[in-house]
Amino acid sequence: METIFTTERVRPLLKQVRDFVHNELIPLEADFSHHDVKTMLPVLEQKRQMVKAAGLWGLHLSEADGGYGLTLTEFGQISEQLAHAPFFGHYVFGCQAPDIGNTELLHRFASDELKERYLKPLMAGEIRSCFSMTEPDYAGSNPTRMATTAVREGNEYVINGRKWFTSSADGAAFAVAMVVTNPDAPMHQRASMIVVPTDTPGFKIERNIPVFGEAGSDWFSHAEVTYTNCRVPVSNVIAGEGMGFRLAQERLGPGRIHHCMRWIGNAERALDLMCRRAATREIEDDVMLGEKQFIQDFIAESRAEIDACRLYVLNTAYMIDTVGVANVRDAVSGIKFYVANAFLRVLDRAIQVHGALGVTDDTILSAMYRHERGARIWDGADEVHKQNLAASILKKYGLDIKKKARELQELRRMMQYASLNEK
Amino acid sequence: METIFTTERVRPLLKQVRDFVHNELIPLEADFSHHDVKTMLPVLEQKRQMVKAAGLWGLHLSEADGGYGLTLTEFGQISEQLAHAPFFGHYVFGCQAPDIGNTELLHRFASDELKERYLKPLMAGEIRSCFSMTEPDYAGSNPTRMATTAVREGNEYVINGRKWFTSSADGAAFAVAMVVTNPDAPMHQRASMIVVPTDTPGFKIERNIPVFGEAGSDWFSHAEVTYTNCRVPVSNVIAGEGMGFRLAQERLGPGRIHHCMRWIGNAERALDLMCRRAATREIEDDVMLGEKQFIQDFIAESRAEIDACRLYVLNTAYMIDTVGVANVRDAVSGIKFYVANAFLRVLDRAIQVHGALGVTDDTILSAMYRHERGARIWDGADEVHKQNLAASILKKYGLDIKKKARELQELRRMMQYASLNEK
Amino acid sequence: METIFTTERVRPLLKQVRDFVHNELIPLEADFSHHDVKTMLPVLEQKRQMVKAAGLWGLHLSEADGGYGLTLTEFGQISEQLAHAPFFGHYVFGCQAPDIGNTELLHRFASDELKERYLKPLMAGEIRSCFSMTEPDYAGSNPTRMATTAVREGNEYVINGRKWFTSSADGAAFAVAMVVTNPDAPMHQRASMIVVPTDTPGFKIERNIPVFGEAGSDWFSHAEVTYTNCRVPVSNVIAGEGMGFRLAQERLGPGRIHHCMRWIGNAERALDLMCRRAATREIEDDVMLGEKQFIQDFIAESRAEIDACRLYVLNTAYMIDTVGVANVRDAVSGIKFYVANAFLRVLDRAIQVHGALGVTDDTILSAMYRHERGARIWDGADEVHKQNLAASILKKYGLDIKKKARELQELRRMMQYASLNEK
Amino acid sequence: METIFTTERVRPLLKQVRDFVHNELIPLEADFSHHDVKTMLPVLEQKRQMVKAAGLWGLHLSEADGGYGLTLTEFGQISEQLAHAPFFGHYVFGCQAPDIGNTELLHRFASDELKERYLKPLMAGEIRSCFSMTEPDYAGSNPTRMATTAVREGNEYVINGRKWFTSSADGAAFAVAMVVTNPDAPMHQRASMIVVPTDTPGFKIERNIPVFGEAGSDWFSHAEVTYTNCRVPVSNVIAGEGMGFRLAQERLGPGRIHHCMRWIGNAERALDLMCRRAATREIEDDVMLGEKQFIQDFIAESRAEIDACRLYVLNTAYMIDTVGVANVRDAVSGIKFYVANAFLRVLDRAIQVHGALGVTDDTILSAMYRHERGARIWDGADEVHKQNLAASILKKYGLDIKKKARELQELRRMMQYASLNEK
Repeated sequence: METIFTTERVRPLLKQVRDFVHNELIPLEADFSHHDVKTMLPVLEQKRQMVKAAGLWGLHLSEADGGYGLTLTEFGQISEQLAHAPFFGHYVFGCQAPDIGNTELLHRFASDELKERYLKPLMAGEIRSCFSMTEPDYAGSNPTRMATTAVREGNEYVINGRKWFTSSADGAAFAVAMVVTNPDAPMHQRASMIVVPTDTPGFKIERNIPVFGEAGSDWFSHAEVTYTNCRVPVSNVIAGEGMGFRLAQERLGPGRIHHCMRWIGNAERALDLMCRRAATREIEDDVMLGEKQFIQDFIAESRAEIDACRLYVLNTAYMIDTVGVANVRDAVSGIKFYVANAFLRVLDRAIQVHGALGVTDDTILSAMYRHERGARIWDGADEVHKQNLAASILKKYGLDIKKKARELQELRRMMQYASLNEK
Repeated sequence: METIFTTERVRPLLKQVRDFVHNELIPLEADFSHHDVKTMLPVLEQKRQMVKAAGLWGLHLSEADGGYGLTLTEFGQISEQLAHAPFFGHYVFGCQAPDIGNTELLHRFASDELKERYLKPLMAGEIRSCFSMTEPDYAGSNPTRMATTAVREGNEYVINGRKWFTSSADGAAFAVAMVVTNPDAPMHQRASMIVVPTDTPGFKIERNIPVFGEAGSDWFSHAEVTYTNCRVPVSNVIAGEGMGFRLAQERLGPGRIHHCMRWIGNAERALDLMCRRAATREIEDDVMLGEKQFIQDFIAESRAEIDACRLYVLNTAYMIDTVGVANVRDAVSGIKFYVANAFLRVLDRAIQVHGALGVTDDTILSAMYRHERGARIWDGADEVHKQNLAASILKKYGLDIKKKARELQELRRMMQYASLNEK
Repeated sequence: METIFTTERVRPLLKQVRDFVHNELIPLEADFSHHDVKTMLPVLEQKRQMVKAAGLWGLHLSEADGGYGLTLTEFGQISEQLAHAPFFGHYVFGCQAPDIGNTELLHRFASDELKERYLKPLMAGEIRSCFSMTEPDYAGSNPTRMATTAVREGNEYVINGRKWFTSSADGAAFAVAMVVTNPDAPMHQRASMIVVPTDTPGFKIERNIPVFGEAGSDWFSHAEVTYTNCRVPVSNVIAGEGMGFRLAQERLGPGRIHHCMRWIGNAERALDLMCRRAATREIEDDVMLGEKQFIQDFIAESRAEIDACRLYVLNTAYMIDTVGVANVRDAVSGIKFYVANAFLRVLDRAIQVHGALGVTDDTILSAMYRHERGARIWDGADEVHKQNLAASILKKYGLDIKKKARELQELRRMMQYASLNEK
Repeated sequence: METIFTTERVRPLLKQVRDFVHNELIPLEADFSHHDVKTMLPVLEQKRQMVKAAGLWGLHLSEADGGYGLTLTEFGQISEQLAHAPFFGHYVFGCQAPDIGNTELLHRFASDELKERYLKPLMAGEIRSCFSMTEPDYAGSNPTRMATTAVREGNEYVINGRKWFTSSADGAAFAVAMVVTNPDAPMHQRASMIVVPTDTPGFKIERNIPVFGEAGSDWFSHAEVTYTNCRVPVSNVIAGEGMGFRLAQERLGPGRIHHCMRWIGNAERALDLMCRRAATREIEDDVMLGEKQFIQDFIAESRAEIDACRLYVLNTAYMIDTVGVANVRDAVSGIKFYVANAFLRVLDRAIQVHGALGVTDDTILSAMYRHERGARIWDGADEVHKQNLAASILKKYGLDIKKKARELQELRRMMQYASLNEK
C-alpha cells in the first residue's frame, strides 16, 4: 500500500532501487545459501560499481557528502526496498549495519581528523567498520554495565576487555568501541566511544560466533573480540570522555528505524514468497494451496501486520525528523518489539506454507530466520523495551517505576554494605 | 502519539472535542450502567444543545450542510476523541451509527425529495434512522443472499420479510431497508435500498434483541423487525432499482473508517483506565500494581497496538480521500479485522488489570466488552475479511480463488439440476 | 475421549448424570436468559427431587454422609458432566460452589456442634451458604492482607468490615467469613474463618454486584456485604483461631479441581454448540459453515485444548488423591490459569462461529461468557498463579524469589520507618 | 510431575535411562555443534556398548526380541527421557527414527525372509535403514499422490522416481520405499512398500538436503534420492501389493507417540536450560533474570504446557495400547499439532531467555530449533491434522466434509473431461 510518507522526491528513487534489487540482487541468492559470503565479494563489488554508476550509492548520506539528503522517513522507505534482498541489498548500496550507524555517529560527533581518516573511506565503501559494545558477561540491554576499560596513559588509552557480537569485525578497518574511561563518574558518564583500528596490537578476533549453525565471515559475521593492552591515541575518543552512553542513545533513534524498515522489507519478501507458493503449489488435482483458508489466514494476517508496522515506523521516523527523537522515545521503544515480532510471525508463516521445502536452504526463508531470530534480542530484548515503554507511560500517571527501582537498588547496596561491615 | 495526519485545521477541533468529552460526557458514565438509556435522553439532549452552541454539531457534514467539510482522515480523528466516551460521544455530537452512514448515503444518492423529507431532519438531530439489512437466516456477510422482497404494485413497493440487527430501530423515524426487487437479475443487481418510514403499516419491531444480557432501548438497541405487506412509494428507492449492492459497497469504505476509529478511541479509554489502575492500586505495602511486569507487558503491548492501528486506519482514510475507496479495497478489508482484534485484546487486558472490579459494572469496561464483542462479527466477520483480502492478493499472483469458487458453485448447481431431472 | 481415569465405579454414574443433564436441564436453558433465576427456583426444586429419587444427590459426599465416596478424580468427571448445563447442573445435583467448598471445609475441620447445625442441612440442600473472603480494597489473591476484624469480647467475636464477591449470599443461611482475629501474630496466623449466620444483626447485603450487566439473585449472584458489630459465639470459629490462612490453603486443591472440571464441561458444551452450528448453517447454496477451514481450525484447536486440559486436571486430582495436595502445589497452580485460558478461548471461538447470533442471548454462549470471564481472575488471577509456579520451580534451581521479595519488603519498611523518625 | 501412567515396571528403567543420558550423553553436546556427526560416531558407538552392557538396548523391542515388552505408554516415557539429549539419546539406545518405525513395520508385516535379512541386524544396531515416501513435487501429507512407480517385470519390480526427506539414507543399508505398483486400483490401493537395498544399482543419494543451514551426514541427515530402473525382487514387498497406504496408516499411531514424546523430552530440556539461565544470570547487582516476571511468565507457561501435553500424549498411547489405534484417530491427529506447537513455543522462550547467547551455538537451543522447526510440518503439517480432526468431529454432527470434497473433486474432473472433449 502506498502511504502518505511517499514524497515526490523519493518515489522515483524507490522505483530505481526496487528494480535494481529485483533484477540484479535477488538472482544472486540461489548461490548464496551454499557458499561462504567471501566467495561472493567479487560479484557484489561489481554490483556496487553498478550502483555507483547509477548514482544510487550512499542514499543515506547528506547532499554535502554526495547523497540525496533524504529525511529519515524517506530513507526508511529506501531501506525497505533494499531489504527485499535480505543479504545483499544494504551492502551493495553501501548502507549496511553497522557501517551506516558508525557513519552517522562520526558524521555528527567526530573530530575533523577522525572524519578525514575514517569517515571518508567508510562513506566511499573503501573500508568497513564494526561496533563493539556488548559483552558476554553483561546483559547487552544495559549500556551502563560493562567491564572493558580504557585507562589513560599519557596521550594514549590502554584498552582491556572482551566484547562479543562485534558484528562485521572480520575484515573491518576499525572498531568503534564502548569502554569505561571514568569508572568513578555517575553511572551514565562512565563510558566513552573510541575508534580502535583493527590492526592495533592487542586487538584480536577470537572467533566469528556461530549463530544458528553458521559462523559466517567478513561483513556477514559476528565476532568475539578481545582487547589486550590495546593502545590508541586519546584523540580517537568520539565527542569527548564520558559521552559513551549519550552517543549510544543518539544511535538508537535512527538505528531503530533502520532495523525496523529492514525487517519490514524482509517481511514483504517473505510474504511475496508465501503468495507465490500459495498460487502455484498444487495440492490436489487442480486445487492450489492458496485456495485453503488456513493459507488465506496467513496471507491476510501478514498483509495487515506489515502494513500497520510500516506506518507505525514511518510515522515515528517522521516525528524524529520533525520534532526530534527526544520527543518520541515511547514510539522508538514501541516499534522495536512490535515490528520484530510481527516480522518473525510473517516469516514463520512463510516457512509453514512451503512445507518441507520451507525448512531447507532451497529458499532463503530458513537463512532469513537464522539471521533474524535475533531481532527480538539485539538492540534490546522485547522485554526491556516493553518495560521501558510501560515505565514511561506510567510516569505520566504518577508512578515512577524506575525511580522506585533505583531507590530499592540503593537500599540493597546499603544492606549489603551493612552486612559486610558486620562481618 | 501525534501523527502526520493531524492537520492544522483539525488540531483545535480535536482539543475542543476532547475537552468536552472529558468534562461533560465521561462524568455521566457512572450512572449509565445502572440505568436504561431512555432515562438519560433528557440530559443527553442538554449536552447536544451545548455541542450545538459550541459549533461542534455535525462535524461529519459538508460545509454546505453546516459542517466543517472535514476529510475522512480528519473526521476519523474527531471520531476517536468522541469514542473516549464510548456510549455518549457520537450520539451527543450527532454522528452516531447508523445515522451517520444513512446521512452519507442520502447525501450522495437520494433524490431531492427524499433529502428534504429525511436527510434534513436527520442532520439536525430531530429524528433518528435505522439500517435494515441483515437477516437471521442468512450470513450477514453476503449481501447477495436475502429473503426480504419488495414487489412493485403500481406506484408502490410491497415489502415482506424479517430483518435483525436493525440497530436503533426503536424510536427511529425511518429505516433504510435492503430488499430484493429484481430476483431474476444478475446476483449483484437484485437488491435495492428503500426508505421505509417506521410508521408504515406492517413495519413491526418484534423485539430489541438482548445482546450479552442487555436488550437496550432507543438508539442503544438492536431490533428484530418484520415487514408485512409494508407499502412505500416507489420514489422511496435510493439511487434506483438494483443499486442495493453497490450502495452497500459505497457505505463500506467510510463506514469501516468510522468503526475503526471508534474502536481506537475505545481502546485508548480502556488503556487509560488500565494505567490509572496500575498506578494507584497497591498490592503489597508500597508496591503498586504497575510495578509488576505482567502489567507492564499489557500496557506496552496495548500502546504499540493502538498506535499502529491508528496509523493503519488513518492512512487508509487518507487513501480514500485522495485516490478513492476503489483503490484501497485491500486496506479497507485489512483494517476491519486488524483493529477489531487489537481493540478487543486491549479491552481484555484492561479488564484483567482491574481484577474482580473489572468484571463488575463499577467501571465501563464490562459494558464496553458487551457492546463491542460484536466488532469481530458485524460488518463482516474476521474470517470473511481475511478471505477477501487473501483472494485479492492472490489474484495478483495469478490465482483467482473467487472465480474458481464461482465455477464450482455453478457446477454444483448443474449437478443438483441433473440429479433432480433424473428423479 | 475416554481417559484412563474413568473407573468402573464412575462410568455408569457418568452416563446417568449425562442423560439427566441433557434430558432435564439443558431444555430449561431456553427460558433462562430472559428470566430472573428466582422465577426458576420451583422448577429447579422439582429437578432436585428427581435427582434425589434417582440416588444422584450429593455425589461429592462420603459414603457416611450418604454419597458414593468418590475420589476427587472421579467426582471431577461427574462435575464436568454437570457443567454441560452451566447454570443448573451443579445446583440441581446439590454440589454448587461455594456450598461444595463449605461442605468440605466443615466436614473436615468444624466442631460437631457446627456440623450438626450447619453442615447437615447444607448437605441436604435445605439451606445454602456463602464464602466471604475478598475485600474490595485489597487484592483478592493475597489472603494475608485484609481489613475485616473480629475482636473477641467474652464469648463472642465482634466482626466489622466490608467484603465483596461473597457469592450466593443472597438467600444464604450462613457465611463462612475470613477475618483478622490476631493482628499481631505472624502474617500467616492472623486470620480465622468463622461461621456467621446471615440473620446476625449487623450482617448486611449492600447489593448484588452487577457483573457484566447482570446483578443476578439468590445463589446466582455475588454480594457486597458489610459486617457492623456483628456478634457470633467464639465457638463458631472453624478449626481454631489463626487457622484462616491454612484453611484457605486447604480449600484450594479440591477447589481448583472443581473449578477446572466445571470449565472443561462448559468448554465441551461450547464446542458442541460450535459444531452444531458449523454442521447446519448454510452460508452459500449447499455450502455449510463447517466446510470452511477457519471454522475447522477453531474446532480442532478446541478439541485438542479441552482434551489436554482434562487430562492435566484429572492427573492433578489423582495426585491429590494419592500423594496429597502438598506434593502437587505446582500443578494446582498450573491447571488454574491453563484451563481458565483455554476455556475462554474455546468459548470465544464458539461465539465467533455463531456470528451475530453469538452475541445475542438466543444461545447460552454470551451468558456463559459473562459469568465466566472472571475465571481468569477469581481464586487468583493468572498472573499470581504464574508467579507462584515460576517461584516454586526456580527455587529448585537455587533462586528463592519469594525470600528475596520478603527481604526487600522488610528493607522498604525499615527505610520508611527511618524516614518517619527523621521527620 | 509424576503421572498415573508411570508403572512400577517402568519407574526403575526411567531412572536408569535418565541417569545415563545426563551423565554420559549430555556432556557430549559441547562438542557436537561444532563437528560433523560422523566424527562422533566412534564415541557414540562406545556409548552404545555401555547401553548394551547395562541391558538397556532396544527398549522398544518385544521380550521375544530381547526387549522388555514395554507398552507404547511405557516406552513413550522412556523416549521422553532419551530426548533430554536431543541429538544422541535415541541413537545411542538404538531406537532412533526412522529405524524404530521400520523395525515395527517389519516386525508386524514382513515375511520371515525379510525379517531374517533386514530386521535382525537392524534391531542389533548393525545396520541402519531409511524411509522413502515424500516426493518434492507432491504434498507429503497426501500419501495417495505420488509419482514413483514400481513396474513388475517377471520376479522383479523396476522402480523409478524421486524422493526427498528420505531421512538417514546416508549410510543406510536399505530403504523402505513407498511406490505406486497398481496405478489403476482405487486410490488407497495403488501404493506398496518395498524394501530396496541401498546398493541396488540405480539407487542414488543426490544430496543431503541442507536444512536450516546444515546438510548433516549419516543418520543425522535428510537425503534426496533418485531411483533409476532400480530392480528388486518382488518378495521385497511388505505385506503384499497395494498395502502401502494401509501400512502408512499403521505406522502413524505409534509414530506420533514417538514424535510427541521426543518433543516433550526436548521441551523439558529447553525448560531446564531456561530455568538454569534465569536462576544464575545477573542482570543488575544482585538481581537475577528469574526475578523478572516476563521470565516467570515464560517458565510458568512452559511448565503447564509441557505437563498438559505429556498427559494428552500418554493417554493417547494408553488408548492405543488398550482399544487400538483405530479408536483414537482423533487424538492421534490432535496430539501431533498440539504438542509440536507447544514444544516450539517453549523452545522459542528458552532462546529468548538466553538473550544473544540463545542465538549462538554455545547452547544446544539453536540447533534444537534448526532440527525441529519441521515438527509442525513433517508427518503432516498442522493444517492437515486440524482439517482431519475437524472433519472427523463434524461427521458425527452429520456433515461429511471429506465426502463433499470428493464429490466436488469428481465434478471438477467431469468438467475438465467435458471441456477437453469440446476442444
